[in-house]
Amino acid sequence: MKKIITIIIINTFIINSFSQMKPQDSNLNLMPWPNKVQMLDGFFIVDKNFTINIVNSSDYNQRVYNASTRFIRSLTNKTGVFIEHGFANNIVKNEKPSLLISFNDTVDLKLGIDESYNLSITKNQIKISAETDIGAMHGLNTLLQLLSVKEVKYGFPFVEIKDSPRFKWRGLMIDVARHFMAVDVIKRNLDAMAYVKLNVFHWHLSDDQGFRVELKKLPLLTLKASDGQFYTQSQIKDIVKYANDRGIRVIPEIGVPGHASAFLTAYPELASNKTRANNIERFSGIFNPALDPTIDKTYELLDTLFSEITPLFPDLYFHIGGDENEGKDWDESELIQKFMKTHNFKNNHELQTYFNIKLQKILNKYGKILMGWDEIMTENMPKSAIIHSWRGKHEGLPQSTLIEAAKKGYKTVLSSGFYIDRMLPASHYYATEPIGDEILTSSERANILGGEATMWSELVTPLNIDSRIWPRTAAIAERFWSSKNINDTESMYNRLEVINNSLENFGITHRRNKQVILRNISNHQEVDALNKLSNISEPFKMYSRNKGGKEYKTFSPFTLFADACNVDAVDARRFDILSKKYLLNQDSNIKDELLIYLNSWKNINIELEKISSNAPIIENILPYSNRVSRVSSIFEKGLQNNKFSKQQYEEVISLLEAKEDFKNNLDVELAVSYSLSELAEFLLKN
Amino acid sequence: MKKIITIIIINTFIINSFSQMKPQDSNLNLMPWPNKVQMLDGFFIVDKNFTINIVNSSDYNQRVYNASTRFIRSLTNKTGVFIEHGFANNIVKNEKPSLLISFNDTVDLKLGIDESYNLSITKNQIKISAETDIGAMHGLNTLLQLLSVKEVKYGFPFVEIKDSPRFKWRGLMIDVARHFMAVDVIKRNLDAMAYVKLNVFHWHLSDDQGFRVELKKLPLLTLKASDGQFYTQSQIKDIVKYANDRGIRVIPEIGVPGHASAFLTAYPELASNKTRANNIERFSGIFNPALDPTIDKTYELLDTLFSEITPLFPDLYFHIGGDENEGKDWDESELIQKFMKTHNFKNNHELQTYFNIKLQKILNKYGKILMGWDEIMTENMPKSAIIHSWRGKHEGLPQSTLIEAAKKGYKTVLSSGFYIDRMLPASHYYATEPIGDEILTSSERANILGGEATMWSELVTPLNIDSRIWPRTAAIAERFWSSKNINDTESMYNRLEVINNSLENFGITHRRNKQVILRNISNHQEVDALNKLSNISEPFKMYSRNKGGKEYKTFSPFTLFADACNVDAVDARRFDILSKKYLLNQDSNIKDELLIYLNSWKNINIELEKISSNAPIIENILPYSNRVSRVSSIFEKGLQNNKFSKQQYEEVISLLEAKEDFKNNLDVELAVSYSLSELAEFLLKN
Repeated sequence: MKKIITIIIINTFIINSFSQMKPQDSNLNLMPWPNKVQMLDGFFIVDKNFTINIVNSSDYNQRVYNASTRFIRSLTNKTGVFIEHGFANNIVKNEKPSLLISFNDTVDLKLGIDESYNLSITKNQIKISAETDIGAMHGLNTLLQLLSVKEVKYGFPFVEIKDSPRFKWRGLMIDVARHFMAVDVIKRNLDAMAYVKLNVFHWHLSDDQGFRVELKKLPLLTLKASDGQFYTQSQIKDIVKYANDRGIRVIPEIGVPGHASAFLTAYPELASNKTRANNIERFSGIFNPALDPTIDKTYELLDTLFSEITPLFPDLYFHIGGDENEGKDWDESELIQKFMKTHNFKNNHELQTYFNIKLQKILNKYGKILMGWDEIMTENMPKSAIIHSWRGKHEGLPQSTLIEAAKKGYKTVLSSGFYIDRMLPASHYYATEPIGDEILTSSERANILGGEATMWSELVTPLNIDSRIWPRTAAIAERFWSSKNINDTESMYNRLEVINNSLENFGITHRRNKQVILRNISNHQEVDALNKLSNISEPFKMYSRNKGGKEYKTFSPFTLFADACNVDAVDARRFDILSKKYLLNQDSNIKDELLIYLNSWKNINIELEKISSNAPIIENILPYSNRVSRVSSIFEKGLQNNKFSKQQYEEVISLLEAKEDFKNNLDVELAVSYSLSELAEFLLKN
Repeated sequence: MKKIITIIIINTFIINSFSQMKPQDSNLNLMPWPNKVQMLDGFFIVDKNFTINIVNSSDYNQRVYNASTRFIRSLTNKTGVFIEHGFANNIVKNEKPSLLISFNDTVDLKLGIDESYNLSITKNQIKISAETDIGAMHGLNTLLQLLSVKEVKYGFPFVEIKDSPRFKWRGLMIDVARHFMAVDVIKRNLDAMAYVKLNVFHWHLSDDQGFRVELKKLPLLTLKASDGQFYTQSQIKDIVKYANDRGIRVIPEIGVPGHASAFLTAYPELASNKTRANNIERFSGIFNPALDPTIDKTYELLDTLFSEITPLFPDLYFHIGGDENEGKDWDESELIQKFMKTHNFKNNHELQTYFNIKLQKILNKYGKILMGWDEIMTENMPKSAIIHSWRGKHEGLPQSTLIEAAKKGYKTVLSSGFYIDRMLPASHYYATEPIGDEILTSSERANILGGEATMWSELVTPLNIDSRIWPRTAAIAERFWSSKNINDTESMYNRLEVINNSLENFGITHRRNKQVILRNISNHQEVDALNKLSNISEPFKMYSRNKGGKEYKTFSPFTLFADACNVDAVDARRFDILSKKYLLNQDSNIKDELLIYLNSWKNINIELEKISSNAPIIENILPYSNRVSRVSSIFEKGLQNNKFSKQQYEEVISLLEAKEDFKNNLDVELAVSYSLSELAEFLLKN
């Protein structure tokens, strides 16, 4: 009788509080945060008898079976438990599985499928139920995120979750043109994407710096315009299948008519400027080469291209770029100007629209719908096209073009505010709210499909791309999946720290490859001091690495100190928090913690000097490490005395404001500068 | 006049001393050590103007061009120098390149091509000259190994090298059946192989635990016998091309008639035992399932298999395994026994020979020559076959089967003594001299082609395979390339340390993934103590991890402490050297260094205990770390007092001899045990 009462009370509690829980009110490190979460009291221990059974309407679902087998292997590897059954559905019939997965439909991956799922963990069993196999896989990833330790055992806390996404398009774009990314780079990132429920991989396959797809009918594209770095068609199929297995759609992008330097290296006869020599571009930036939209040959070749490339990608949408064509080559071509006059085109926009419409027809012929960057949103563009909004406040507009597109009746995807290559902190992207307080009709709201983080690759290589994508993209994934009111930055950073640890288990190399770069910089000597310095240093933001007369080329070294450093520098974040607290309450324990940091930074320079004679790259770091250590030494004394003299204050401020010479290629900034300035003010006034 | 005299003297010196230099007499960290080395005085600095030009008889050699471009990129990444020309042959005509590469022939890769090269580094220029493009690429790798620091600049010491290999077959076998290794795992290992001049990749593609090649005519092999983990044909072609680009031949192995559990899971009608259910094997060991050699169907299917698989591999040789078939299923089959009687076969050997001869004819039909493990060396085996010697002293023979094969007139390759999965120290393999003092005729000597390190994968996964192959395989590569008299173990270890650092730059993950495993074990807490412990701990050797009632399956966790540890544990080696010195001379500085180690080990256990409550895997390590820390603490006291009491002595000896419980899956041994025992004897007697 007592037991029954307890159960009733718990049930009432569930009903009452379901949907109320915010991440900051729990210890669950889920990201993206689910729609509705209810914690219960208890813990499901993972032991060697852990089993999975999959029940669905059709007989066998390869996607969920494979995902479940990967799930068991993840459990085994993470926990060290020798789980007896290494495969899903590998148990004696009628035996109760530890985890029961059920769903109704096996779906073809496309925009707008049902991705919802329920997850329940109780004493008797873990249950995932969903409408579709894709929803079931989301449930598995949520479950994996719940794996934690209690009383020296790995297991799952009892919980009830009902979950579904806010936006149906949650993407990551990877640019493989500026720096080529081999198959394994893409695959590990697809694994990580699935872990945070991203469902669109936008593959930026061509640009001025290279054309990356094997086309048998147009062999010159890879022979002349790829430096031998491209995907074979079977590699593309392999990746598309790999993504599909993880519930991720693949949207290819072949950018036209601009960004065409590589393209025209292969087929110069399509150039708007027929006199310029065409070469694969080695620098970053916006360049003039553009296809000639006035000649039939252009459309004939594009028809050939799309006839061969479209069958490789099952998705309905095909991205044609269409951005950043400034039209200089069009302005300067007599023939093109004549053509425009004949057709009564008032400006290059109208000519580009003419081009886009013709392109759209070619795509339609091959069963595809056109998607393009927001420049394609011109008067005659059919409403079936998806507008990819990349311009916003940063480009001088009052707001991102997303709202304009939605109001004009276009389906639209947001990347303005999600340019992760700008190297802004996770909090910046997390605070980028796609719709905001904009009032929209329900059909306008329905036009807003979601968003995409964009990883442009001018300054990244396979060695450090993971550290530029992760963990920040996990915070963006939450922005795309979770409710608008899940927006507490501190909670985001706390959960992100844990999610970031797990990413390593999917092969993400952000942490391990940082050490590879530091070992190389030190020429395989001690890396402790470099690690300490890198943990308070961040690479220059907003594309400012190419300044001071220095420009990175495709093949410049990306093994420099800046390439090992990352945004949201870990010790800087910790120091900032401590420092803020100290300014509030002058707690002596916190002061001691601050002093430990300052003391360790004080010694960085001397440690680096010790090894620099055998490590030429360190020589370039010394002016910076010298400054950091001097600042730290003065702060250590000041904090110990609770007081800065005017002279000390002026010295640290001038040191904090100093900049190293650009020619050193250091390209980093001290991430604790702001905290230290505040601390300096305090110590002066104390 | 003075100048001329100097030059003459230097030249005389060159002539006299050329070929005399041993590695221990130089500071060059080359591995394999070249045939003839002469050091000169001077240093060629790498700066932004570094260029390469390739001159050869044909117009363009893709292989050397790509290798040269990779070389420039390696220089850029290693040195941090912004080299202006990121590509080879990308300089103004008539300008003098920094590096001039010349060779006569572009060769098809096959057994016995000319691999010699000369390398000269002088003030004016670096020159590589060779007979073939393959030789030129060897020269590039030697040059890359010479990259070093002088006066805070990266560059190359002036040197003259004339080099060619002792053996023409220098291989690494990777087993992708026990644990599948994806394309990127193979590619990074091919890069590392080329760096140490290995020229054969032996690809063990099938075994009881899986069949790993897509065959369109036999789809069941991958559908039923691979767990979905196999290479598509285009992936195989991609890898063969990648290897070829690096001068590496690919020898595929499909093992028959034994090791057939997976094979027979797909095609049970070929089983010798038709009543047993066939399943992919999950354990390690030798199993009974074997193809039935008495039925036509077997040969028909093998004909189909080889007709499709042989065109994927351009090399003349095809490895058919042929080992470890104990014939139990043949003994127990009435039909097979009847067949043997009819054919007058006295034993299973004769039946297997019958099988091999038929197989050999099939292979010949497809233009291939058979290679097999030494069990195939039976009376009627044609002399064209290559005998792969794997059995030797370890298997109870007086010596390896290599000499027997050579004397019988077979071409032969040695792997006995090079089983790197036995986890013996580099010195063991380095001391395995293939020919020794055996007196051979010149044709017998010519039959000995070389050797292969074998990486069987029962206990490795993509996460740690690199650490099991490298750096030890670099020492084996020297054994295969360099003269027999290049055999100083200390010099080998000193050079190996530097080569080991460079391997990381080819993507070898041995160091970075060790940290991944330790971070996982610590559940992302502090890993310092785990690192310290792992640096004096080695995984069990000689297949002894599967003991004490515990057996690893394919999908067991390979993320345990033993998987992070490695042979030749770095701190153990350093401690051993110090300890030996101390026993000789009781130098107090050395004593201090020993005390630093002991002191740091003393604290490992307490540091691990601190984090163990949140890291269940660490709980299993505590009995061991407790023992290590207790031993270290007693030694610290003893060494400080220069004296052990009888009681202290007995306590440390008993602790050193203790073993942890197998059920903890710890599977490591303390690598400083021997040094500590010696030190204990000394301290007792002091």
